[in-house]
Amino acid sequence: MMTLHGYWRSSASYRVRIGLALKGVAVKHVAVNLRDESQKSKDHLAINPQGFVPVLELENGAVLTQSLAILEYLDATYPDPALLPMDPLLRSRVKAAALTIAADISPIQNLSVLKYIRAQHDQGDAGVTQWAAHWIETGFVTLENIAQSHKTDFFMTNAPSLFECCLIPQIYNACRFGVDINRFPKLMTIDAKCRELPAFIAAAPENQADVI
Amino acid sequence: MMTLHGYWRSSASYRVRIGLALKGVAVKHVAVNLRDESQKSKDHLAINPQGFVPVLELENGAVLTQSLAILEYLDATYPDPALLPMDPLLRSRVKAAALTIAADISPIQNLSVLKYIRAQHDQGDAGVTQWAAHWIETGFVTLENIAQSHKTDFFMTNAPSLFECCLIPQIYNACRFGVDINRFPKLMTIDAKCRELPAFIAAAPENQADVI
Repeated sequence: MMTLHGYWRSSASYRVRIGLALKGVAVKHVAVNLRDESQKSKDHLAINPQGFVPVLELENGAVLTQSLAILEYLDATYPDPALLPMDPLLRSRVKAAALTIAADISPIQNLSVLKYIRAQHDQGDAGVTQWAAHWIETGFVTLENIAQSHKTDFFMTNAPSLFECCLIPQIYNACRFGVDINRFPKLMTIDAKCRELPAFIAAAPENQADVI
Repeated sequence: MMTLHGYWRSSASYRVRIGLALKGVAVKHVAVNLRDESQKSKDHLAINPQGFVPVLELENGAVLTQSLAILEYLDATYPDPALLPMDPLLRSRVKAAALTIAADISPIQNLSVLKYIRAQHDQGDAGVTQWAAHWIETGFVTLENIAQSHKTDFFMTNAPSLFECCLIPQIYNACRFGVDINRFPKLMTIDAKCRELPAFIAAAPENQADVI
C-alpha cells in the first residue's frame, strides 16, 4: 500500500486525497503537523528535501512530490476514472486552469510566504488576510470567467477532473481568508456538486484523522 | 503557423520559446510589452482574461495559456524530441522539479506580486530584490540537492526536458535579482550546457525582436 504524507488542512495534500479517493486507491496516511513545523523535521526532509507536503511514498519506497505531479502520476498508473481528458487541447486547458490555482494562487499564500510577510514586511493579521484574499480573488475572477463560458457539468468536463481536485481545496482556503465567494457563482455551483460526492467527502479536511 | 504572444524578458514566455525551438516548431511572435501594461489591454485580455503571457494561439484560433500546460500540449502534438520521459515515475519527478520553479519560485516574484509589495508593504528596491532573491534561493537549494543526486547529462535526463525549459529562464531571472548562483554548481553546469545549444540560444531574451 502507498503512503501519503500530508496534513489535514494543507490544500496541496487535500488535492491528492481527492484524486486518490476518486480513483478508489487506498493509502496509509502519515500526518505531518505543519503547526509544529514537522515538515522541517529530519525525518520529513529525508523524504522531501523541500520540506513540503504532500509526499506520496510508493510501495517500493520511491517518493513523489508536488501535488500536480503526483496526481498526473496517479492518472497514468490508475487511469480509471481519468482526471484529464485525452484530447490534447482540452487536456492542456484543464491543466492550465489547475495551474492557475496551483501556481498563481496557492504558492503566494503558502505558510512560508505568510511567515515572511509577517516577519519582514511587518504585516499583522489584517495585512496577511488581505494579502491571501487578494491573490485568491484575482485568480478566481479569471476562473469564474472561464467557467461561465462552459456548459459542462463541472468546470470544463462532465466529471471531476484535475481542476476540481485543485478548486475545492482552494475554495476551502478562500473561506478561511474571508473571501466573499458568492462573487463566483459558477465556481460555487461546481463546489456544491463536488462536495456531495463520496470522494470529496472522504478527502475533506474535517474528515481526516489529524484534524485539530 | 501558430502565434506566440510573449515578452522577451518574461520567464514563462522564455520557457515556451525553448520548448518550441527544441522541437523545431516555427511560430509567429507577437510582442506584449509588460512594461507598458499591454498584457492588460483589451486585445490581450480578449485572448487571455488572466492578462498574462505567454499565450499560444493555434492556427484555428484556439488559445492555450500557462507555460507548463502549453509545453505539455506541444509535447503531445510534436512528440520528437520528447520533453518528458515516458516512464510514469521519472515523468512525475521531472514535472515536480519543473513545478518547483513554475509554482514555488516564479509566481512569487511575478511582476504583479512585486508591485503589490511595493505599494502595500512599502518595499523599496532593496526589499523587492531581497524578496525575489529569497524565493529563488530557497527553491534552488532544493533543486541543487536533487541535481547532485543524479548522474545524468542534464537534470534527471540525458537531454533537455521540461525542467530545463524552466531552469534556464529562472537562472536568467536569478541573475537579475543578484542571486549568488555560484552556490548552485550543478545547476550552473546544466545552465552552461543548455546555453550552448542552438534552441536555447534562439530562445534567449537578448535574441528576441522586442528586446529593449
